Amino acid sequence: MKLFYSPASPYARKVLVCAHELGLADEIETVPTSPFTDEEYRATNPLGKVPALASDEMGTIYDSTVICEYLDQLSTGAKVFPANDRPRIDALCLHALAQGMTDAALNLRQNTMRGESEGASPLPEDWYVERQYSAIAAGMDEAEAKLEDFKGDVNIGTIALACFLGYWNFRFADHVWQDDYPGLATWLAEFNARPSMIATQPS
Amino acid sequence: MKLFYSPASPYARKVLVCAHELGLADEIETVPTSPFTDEEYRATNPLGKVPALASDEMGTIYDSTVICEYLDQLSTGAKVFPANDRPRIDALCLHALAQGMTDAALNLRQNTMRGESEGASPLPEDWYVERQYSAIAAGMDEAEAKLEDFKGDVNIGTIALACFLGYWNFRFADHVWQDDYPGLATWLAEFNARPSMIATQPS
Repeated sequence: MKLFYSPASPYARKVLVCAHELGLADEIETVPTSPFTDEEYRATNPLGKVPALASDEMGTIYDSTVICEYLDQLSTGAKVFPANDRPRIDALCLHALAQGMTDAALNLRQNTMRGESEGASPLPEDWYVERQYSAIAAGMDEAEAKLEDFKGDVNIGTIALACFLGYWNFRFADHVWQDDYPGLATWLAEFNARPSMIATQPS
Repeated sequence: MKLFYSPASPYARKVLVCAHELGLADEIETVPTSPFTDEEYRATNPLGKVPALASDEMGTIYDSTVICEYLDQLSTGAKVFPANDRPRIDALCLHALAQGMTDAALNLRQNTMRGESEGASPLPEDWYVERQYSAIAAGMDEAEAKLEDFKGDVNIGTIALACFLGYWNFRFADHVWQDDYPGLATWLAEFNARPSMIATQPS
């Protein structure tokens, strides 16, 4: 299987962490791509985003969450999607929280990049920007409050949360959050010691 | 169960169409909300987006896709998430395509709204705007090309696609697409005749 990805993408990292946790990392060839400048990539993923997975069995699969569920199906051992109803919805809800924060962080980064384009002026610091920061702050509050419910789990929810926090540290290093969220900070330090996280650090 | 929603949201409509298809619509009380101006709503969904579902059994659930999967679990009859591996991934991939187009349309709308805020200037028609239109165009090409694979299905993928097209018609009525995508136009006309679609039309 080929995984089209970009090294800094938190969505691609989520897929790779799942692959490692499921014991499937060796079956995936990673292909770096610049989705927005590589026109041919549109034939792989019409939405022009990474990651996408190309497999002989399934053709092309996207988005990151569908790829994770496909890898989960392939695994005969470990699983990252809980099978039972209640744990499954809880994990998916934590995943949605982490994805929402990741989307907000990406929105902020795109907003900055638009203002730094050649000939462009910085975009206003308006309600749109405030809304992204607000979603991240409220999402962090929620994750800290729910920590006892998920802190021992390794599933699609906790993996997505760890990848979000890693991305936030990587791209928004001046936004120090560890003092305000000591539980999450301790949890992330422990989660980051997993081989799946070490093998997929953004660089 | 209470569903917090806004009448024009394509994500909320997706949930309501699923509820109708699953025979659960009568068990859901819909509560209109303005997520970005209602500060109390943040206690329901930290991300400040609609929809969210509040249930006695599960507490609060988001995002729209997780709510749909929860309703699917509750249903003892019809299902909108295929149970078997290959059909499930195919439906989830079509769903991801439709969600990607919906996200792009919402990005365009937010971009316009930022320029129309009090005291603001219109935002540039830059690569960001082009990227959203490009994702929608390529997504429509892909959906038209894959029509034979899904046109008889009623599942999370086709429901999301119909809700995207309904939103596109509703908010971007001057972007006429039916001549370029005759297969999708015919398919949508038939799908729109379902009671679930009639009961959830945006107004």
